[in-house]
Amino acid sequence: MSAAVIAYDQGMGRWEPNARGRLERAAMELYIERGFEQTTVTEIARRAGLTQRTFFRHYADKREVLFAGSGLLEELIVRTLGGALDSAAPIDAVAEAIEAAGAAIQEGGDRPRQRQVVIAANPELQERELIKLASLASAIAGALRQHGVPDPAASLTAEAGIAVFKIAFERWISLSDQQDLPQYIREAVDELKAVTAGK
Amino acid sequence: MSAAVIAYDQGMGRWEPNARGRLERAAMELYIERGFEQTTVTEIARRAGLTQRTFFRHYADKREVLFAGSGLLEELIVRTLGGALDSAAPIDAVAEAIEAAGAAIQEGGDRPRQRQVVIAANPELQERELIKLASLASAIAGALRQHGVPDPAASLTAEAGIAVFKIAFERWISLSDQQDLPQYIREAVDELKAVTAGK
Repeated sequence: MSAAVIAYDQGMGRWEPNARGRLERAAMELYIERGFEQTTVTEIARRAGLTQRTFFRHYADKREVLFAGSGLLEELIVRTLGGALDSAAPIDAVAEAIEAAGAAIQEGGDRPRQRQVVIAANPELQERELIKLASLASAIAGALRQHGVPDPAASLTAEAGIAVFKIAFERWISLSDQQDLPQYIREAVDELKAVTAGK
Repeated sequence: MSAAVIAYDQGMGRWEPNARGRLERAAMELYIERGFEQTTVTEIARRAGLTQRTFFRHYADKREVLFAGSGLLEELIVRTLGGALDSAAPIDAVAEAIEAAGAAIQEGGDRPRQRQVVIAANPELQERELIKLASLASAIAGALRQHGVPDPAASLTAEAGIAVFKIAFERWISLSDQQDLPQYIREAVDELKAVTAGK
């Protein structure tokens, strides 16, 4: 690693040893400064002090920088769900899994909010995000069926979980009262239970 | 109208006086026979016995043939919802509105099923469908807020309604037991109430 890159990293007040993290940070900065469309992979690599070739070792394209985390979140949700289903009702197991995802997202610091700004500014990225959420709903429904929850209960519980996640995430992004995302998720689950009970 | 077109319409065993309906039927046939990508507006107009110019008086492009109905459904849902909210809990008012949409969809005969086959075969159309559903969720949430339902209850009830619609529609499309779509919607609402109650 060149001295310039070390200086750059120290300049940001934080040590990032991995190329992947540096590429992600550089990409996010550029997407916000110039817009997603206007940013090239060359610029991302240059800002991160790395080569294009290194970029493509980590990401298939500039869009994947924004969506690479979705697969990990899905794995986390499905794994947590599997464990929780032994002792909880399906809706509460899904809630627990979504909360775990919320905690993981929150660990990303400013990144999830920056990512949301970038996605909100680009219809194509919004479509991609909806596809990812639909695929997450399918994965949750599949995990529920595997644990013996029949359809349509499995699909409905999964869709309810995604609804909770969407609403809680939007509130977390838009409100700045420092409440944590898992807490918003718990509140949204309680609220969903209340509204479906006709309250 | 040319004799050939009259013969064509009679040949299908059904009188369709309007150009719009003929264009829609021709488009759907071609999308299923050749695929959406491979079909041109020229071919749709020719099959309908009409001109390209007539096509563009009715539809902006070949994709709009599939999605023109979404706006009408949204209007129907929002209007029904407004009336139902006077006497029913938000979740039941949304259910009533979605049922009304289900009844309208069912009146389309084979068309909704054909449309689904076309959309399922094309990722770009699937994305478009997800966007339309997200926009429908926003419209429902907006109508609920207008009638005094606060957030996050309004957003969650709207998302719950969309979840119910998606699941009921998928079941209706995939099962062939002649049950009607509004009935599937009622069952999905009951099931959602059961799963969120932890049953």
